[in-house]
Amino acid sequence: MRVALYQNYPKFGDVENNVKQALAAVAPHSFDLLVLPELFATGYQFKSREEAMSYGEPVGSGFTFDAMKELAIQKKAVVIYGYPELEGGKIYNSAAAVMPEGSFVNYQKVHLFDTEKQIFEPGQTGFKTFDFNGARMGLMICFDWRFPESMRRLALDGAQIICHPANLVLPHCPQAMIIRALENNVFTVTADRIGVEERHGQRLEFIGRSRIIAPDGEVLAEAGDEEASFLSVDIDPSAADNKQINERNDLFADRRPHFY
Amino acid sequence: MRVALYQNYPKFGDVENNVKQALAAVAPHSFDLLVLPELFATGYQFKSREEAMSYGEPVGSGFTFDAMKELAIQKKAVVIYGYPELEGGKIYNSAAAVMPEGSFVNYQKVHLFDTEKQIFEPGQTGFKTFDFNGARMGLMICFDWRFPESMRRLALDGAQIICHPANLVLPHCPQAMIIRALENNVFTVTADRIGVEERHGQRLEFIGRSRIIAPDGEVLAEAGDEEASFLSVDIDPSAADNKQINERNDLFADRRPHFY
Repeated sequence: MRVALYQNYPKFGDVENNVKQALAAVAPHSFDLLVLPELFATGYQFKSREEAMSYGEPVGSGFTFDAMKELAIQKKAVVIYGYPELEGGKIYNSAAAVMPEGSFVNYQKVHLFDTEKQIFEPGQTGFKTFDFNGARMGLMICFDWRFPESMRRLALDGAQIICHPANLVLPHCPQAMIIRALENNVFTVTADRIGVEERHGQRLEFIGRSRIIAPDGEVLAEAGDEEASFLSVDIDPSAADNKQINERNDLFADRRPHFY
Repeated sequence: MRVALYQNYPKFGDVENNVKQALAAVAPHSFDLLVLPELFATGYQFKSREEAMSYGEPVGSGFTFDAMKELAIQKKAVVIYGYPELEGGKIYNSAAAVMPEGSFVNYQKVHLFDTEKQIFEPGQTGFKTFDFNGARMGLMICFDWRFPESMRRLALDGAQIICHPANLVLPHCPQAMIIRALENNVFTVTADRIGVEERHGQRLEFIGRSRIIAPDGEVLAEAGDEEASFLSVDIDPSAADNKQINERNDLFADRRPHFY
């Protein structure tokens, strides 16, 4: 299975061009799984809830969804991307996984970061896993990394590949994802962005450093902090199934939840 | 509050000299908290359960306990050390915290590593916190680091300083402890050992790299991988109380356990 990510540099609000640019960047490549960043088509720093809603799409429809569905069909791949989700007159920071036959899975970010709390509702879907081409994927978004329970939940639910759209501004996540992979024995795909936004006085510099990490903590591919980048790696998802790290330790069987 | 650790190089089985050597190394220094490694006085690699039992001490008595109690009284400090604990005809991989007025807290390792499972019983005490000089400490041992639930439990129970006797052979723990500190906003004190043991065919090289880490992930002090070392740092334990990492995110209040 070939897993890929595209680290982008969106121009705030220019949805059509941001989508076009991502499509052009991945067009020459083949993959079975593509992860795009959090809010990849809109940009990150909304000035208000109203502004975010004006860019929102309902799950399963809209310009961005249609483009991602078309891409999924073309590539016979699952495409995962972050977007502002309109639901019941509210707006969520969400990620959708779009499958080539048209089905999709939607996840609303559980742990909102900083000013996102002024814009988005706390997610209500809970963490989501789904199967594609015989592999199980799990969805989480950006700041969810800071809470080990996020990836633990996904891994306990059988996820082999953690798909992690992100817009990172804190420095620690790339390193943390190595530890998250190790503690759960899973693959991780963090698709981050680069560039700067400063739309309401707070300057945000996005750190890039998107990474694909193996269950043993090895960084299989990584992007820099200054350029848009496409990365892909061929993996065997079943490497995440055996939680045995030596003859006597199984990372899941060794858990003792009554002490947690 | 001055927190300290001693990274030692015990000679297997030479309890009297290993204790004497640790006492001599810390004698010139003052501290309020001292953390010594896992099984610091006996060495690590027991050939059998019977051999481990022959080195065991019941909680609150024995040669090593008496020496640590004497040290706690002399230094007016809490002394934490790893030892093989005899209890009810069984043997546990334990850590004791000895206070100068003579009280103590005992913790039996929850997550046993590799061949330890052939020697020790799985711990039954659960994770332990206790107060000393106005600060709350939490106890965990070595491989407990691999399970994020260990430190999460201690931090949710109010621990400001995680005291972590260790005998590390895997390479990832020093880096992981930065992430553990960050995800819980606590201080961590990992006291490891150096040297090699090869008592039943399996060669173990202990990695040293003992560390004291701040709640923001800063490594305040660290030892190398080749020498016995005493480290100490003055800290304000209350820096661990505020889980607010920015104006809007509180690492504990933001947890959403119904999704975990």
